[in-house]
Amino acid sequence: MSLKIALAQINFVVGNIAANLDHIVATAAYAKTELHADLVVFPELTITGYPAEDLLLRPDFIADANNALYQLADRISDIAIVVGYPETDGERLYNSAAVLHQGVILANYRKQALPNYGVFDEQRYFTAGQQPCVFEFNGQFIGLTICEDVWTGGIIAATQQAGAELVLTLNASPFNAGKIQQREAVICAQAKAANLPLVYVNQVGGQDELIFDGASFVVAADGSIAFRAAEFVEQTSVVEFIGKQPQLANCAPLYPAVASEYHALVLGIKDYVRKNGFKGALLGLSGGIDSALVLALAVDALGAGQVEAVLMPSRYTQDMSNEDAVLEAVALGVKYHSIAIEPAVHAFTQMLSEVFAGTAKDTTEENIQARCRGVILMAMSNKQGKLLLTTGNKSEMSVGYATLYGDMAGGFAPLKDVPKLLVYQLAHYRNSLSAVIPERVITRPPSAELAPDQIDADSLPPYDVLDPILERYVEQDMSAADIIAEGYRPEDVARAVKLVDRNEYKRRQSPPGIKISTRAFGRDRRYPITSGYRGL
Amino acid sequence: MSLKIALAQINFVVGNIAANLDHIVATAAYAKTELHADLVVFPELTITGYPAEDLLLRPDFIADANNALYQLADRISDIAIVVGYPETDGERLYNSAAVLHQGVILANYRKQALPNYGVFDEQRYFTAGQQPCVFEFNGQFIGLTICEDVWTGGIIAATQQAGAELVLTLNASPFNAGKIQQREAVICAQAKAANLPLVYVNQVGGQDELIFDGASFVVAADGSIAFRAAEFVEQTSVVEFIGKQPQLANCAPLYPAVASEYHALVLGIKDYVRKNGFKGALLGLSGGIDSALVLALAVDALGAGQVEAVLMPSRYTQDMSNEDAVLEAVALGVKYHSIAIEPAVHAFTQMLSEVFAGTAKDTTEENIQARCRGVILMAMSNKQGKLLLTTGNKSEMSVGYATLYGDMAGGFAPLKDVPKLLVYQLAHYRNSLSAVIPERVITRPPSAELAPDQIDADSLPPYDVLDPILERYVEQDMSAADIIAEGYRPEDVARAVKLVDRNEYKRRQSPPGIKISTRAFGRDRRYPITSGYRGL
Repeated sequence: MSLKIALAQINFVVGNIAANLDHIVATAAYAKTELHADLVVFPELTITGYPAEDLLLRPDFIADANNALYQLADRISDIAIVVGYPETDGERLYNSAAVLHQGVILANYRKQALPNYGVFDEQRYFTAGQQPCVFEFNGQFIGLTICEDVWTGGIIAATQQAGAELVLTLNASPFNAGKIQQREAVICAQAKAANLPLVYVNQVGGQDELIFDGASFVVAADGSIAFRAAEFVEQTSVVEFIGKQPQLANCAPLYPAVASEYHALVLGIKDYVRKNGFKGALLGLSGGIDSALVLALAVDALGAGQVEAVLMPSRYTQDMSNEDAVLEAVALGVKYHSIAIEPAVHAFTQMLSEVFAGTAKDTTEENIQARCRGVILMAMSNKQGKLLLTTGNKSEMSVGYATLYGDMAGGFAPLKDVPKLLVYQLAHYRNSLSAVIPERVITRPPSAELAPDQIDADSLPPYDVLDPILERYVEQDMSAADIIAEGYRPEDVARAVKLVDRNEYKRRQSPPGIKISTRAFGRDRRYPITSGYRGL
Repeated sequence: MSLKIALAQINFVVGNIAANLDHIVATAAYAKTELHADLVVFPELTITGYPAEDLLLRPDFIADANNALYQLADRISDIAIVVGYPETDGERLYNSAAVLHQGVILANYRKQALPNYGVFDEQRYFTAGQQPCVFEFNGQFIGLTICEDVWTGGIIAATQQAGAELVLTLNASPFNAGKIQQREAVICAQAKAANLPLVYVNQVGGQDELIFDGASFVVAADGSIAFRAAEFVEQTSVVEFIGKQPQLANCAPLYPAVASEYHALVLGIKDYVRKNGFKGALLGLSGGIDSALVLALAVDALGAGQVEAVLMPSRYTQDMSNEDAVLEAVALGVKYHSIAIEPAVHAFTQMLSEVFAGTAKDTTEENIQARCRGVILMAMSNKQGKLLLTTGNKSEMSVGYATLYGDMAGGFAPLKDVPKLLVYQLAHYRNSLSAVIPERVITRPPSAELAPDQIDADSLPPYDVLDPILERYVEQDMSAADIIAEGYRPEDVARAVKLVDRNEYKRRQSPPGIKISTRAFGRDRRYPITSGYRGL
């Protein structure tokens, strides 16, 4: 007995129910006419997109989503589809999947395992389902599960006991480096343990801080991968099952780690700009490595014609910074401007001379320079409707080596979750595709150029010391004592930990950025600003 | 049989375990020696403060908190205390209460109802307890509950069935207008239904966006209030129980609504400044009602000597604005400065003249003025270590009538959850105590003064129309259609809803503010920035 199942790895806009509906209908039509599929599986919460956050608390939104399901049942006739939607029983809300076929709901399943950790808040919105769901289609008994269900022990087994010969999983599983390997390892082991084949369909696309990477796949009952869709792109493919056995189909290769992070960042920028209706992006290009990388990412995401770079030299800017910035802008073919900040810095210095009389120079004067750049960039963003990209990296965000309303001014922060050492790796990766970032930008010591002969190493431990400490403290929740026990110098650890703790207030006002690590600043790491815990 | 129970309504610093421990010990000593209490009840999660957010995910923090409990057991000998702490069994975490007496843990209770809505995320951290806890003390059977437990049907009844003759409740119940009345109504009804007396101890103080208002109370078994502590201040009081009957004690009166909101705001500013170690506060004083109110609040919170005001006139600033700003600064006795922004505005205009050549004036030029003010204020904040208070209100935050990095620049936003109409009421209330805000500030039409003869009503519906629409849309999750059905003009509703939806990106970068409504922007309302839902 043959059953052709299509995996619809599609890119939604959260909340745009009408557009999502059209996308579902078009994809189902394609799966029917081009792929000759019998059944199409869509990602989790297909109709609303994921995560819809507090939109899910609104009765009008839930009513619209439920009406959309019935419209969809009417619009799909000659193929069966499995779609996710926020089901209401009038009182409680469920994260559900419905099987639609010939105008009726053939089966309905309520997600049992509701993740409420990391970036997930599902227990804020949903009530957990209590039972498995198995439906018969074309003579085959098919079980339904949703995302966290198949990471949780017991749910696949219960679905099997309910009679499933094959399990479908609707997912919205966000990317971080290594997540794809982890996901396949866990799910293949679960399938193998239950001796059941499994069809895993993931969403693709960027949604604020999250990237959904796609890489949907089919596992055979022996735990082997029979099919894998590509990462970071929309793709609708079909896999034929003969009885319980999926027939081998094309397995897209997986990107190496750094390449996958690069492509995640490109997709994140592209979707944030596109889904929010910006007319392109602009950024300040300093001649340093961070803005050099952001420019390359932006061009790869949007095309050179949609990106503008602004050089804003000061008296502390070295000639090589301007030269290298221009070299890259030319190499990438983007329009660039140069606006010296001295007149504004001078004006503020004069205006503040009376209130600052008798005080010593400190970071205040450095911040004024950074904020003058922020005013210029925001003015250009406002005038043109282009998204201002900030260029700060995760190491800087961690320790607060950034100026609020200065270099932190902007609508989106592509490198917010990229530590400095990874910035270098990503730059090397990009140059391996085509050399666009001047070599000197990569090799010179990093500097904010806000004071004479300043380099980052004056204020911070070197990044090859700082980054591993930050990873342990921020991502792994290790204590200072345990980090020191790994051989890091107590003064470096104390310094880093203190700076991370103190700068929560800055991070709270930073633009959203793209999560690529196991713990990103933002919804993934929720710290109080006011905190007396020192942990030293 | 007599039992004297002290209610320790105290103010913690989240995460400062050592300081909280000292505070508990000192309060217990006071309750023993001054109040002759037998037992002291402290608020929820006494040892760590509430909410500790993702600090609760750190093994070192949990180990420190659990060690602190054992230290506390050693330090308290001659009185029994009930304290809250994050209990670990090595794997799971519980929101627990322990009764300490003569060096041992007499009883331990795990919170059963874990709120995960609004500002609460307890299911992110804790596992729910499964059973009631009743302990015998001085011949009386006492049940333990924690906060949400006593709002949830069935838990008091189960505690009673387990033998409780009296229920203690440890709480961290955040303020919003009307919350005290709601809290007493619900809890008194629960006590009466179970025919049990109840001792309700609430935390007091500000923690980032939350205010805990205190107002701890004791309910008799007939549902009547036998004692109430004051709102918004630390207070340790004792109530004597003869058998099940609490003896009447002093009931602090409740503030009327507007007064309670005023005192909540004062406490919020005071605790944010104090707990974060700022050397006072400063703000831009425009001559408008918002900054006039923030100045009065700041002085009431910190004292005139800790507050500075900065006038920053432009060519569009009317003389009366400067005059009124000076009048208020003088009336309140605060230091003020006046720095005209024209030189910086002129510099930016020149610097941008080439890239802006041929474009029409728009809000870009208005934003430049606001951002010049932001640079000046942040420079003064950086130089002096004073907290910059923003002055925007909730109506503006809702519709985005504010400039990112301009008037939105600052560390704390006292009026972030105060709609414009309430700003007026609060100003009247403050002037009823002593006239400090010039009458003309209250009576003149509001204006941003960023363009010639500009008033808010040019860009927005009048506030007596806008505010009720915003309350329905933001706080009550009503649909546009339902708001229109209440009689609001479709064009006003459409305008307001569209502006709220579009400006999520601005709010995401706004400073924290003080929650006083049933739904504040921030952790209380979690919307996606990227959203295609229009709901119109």
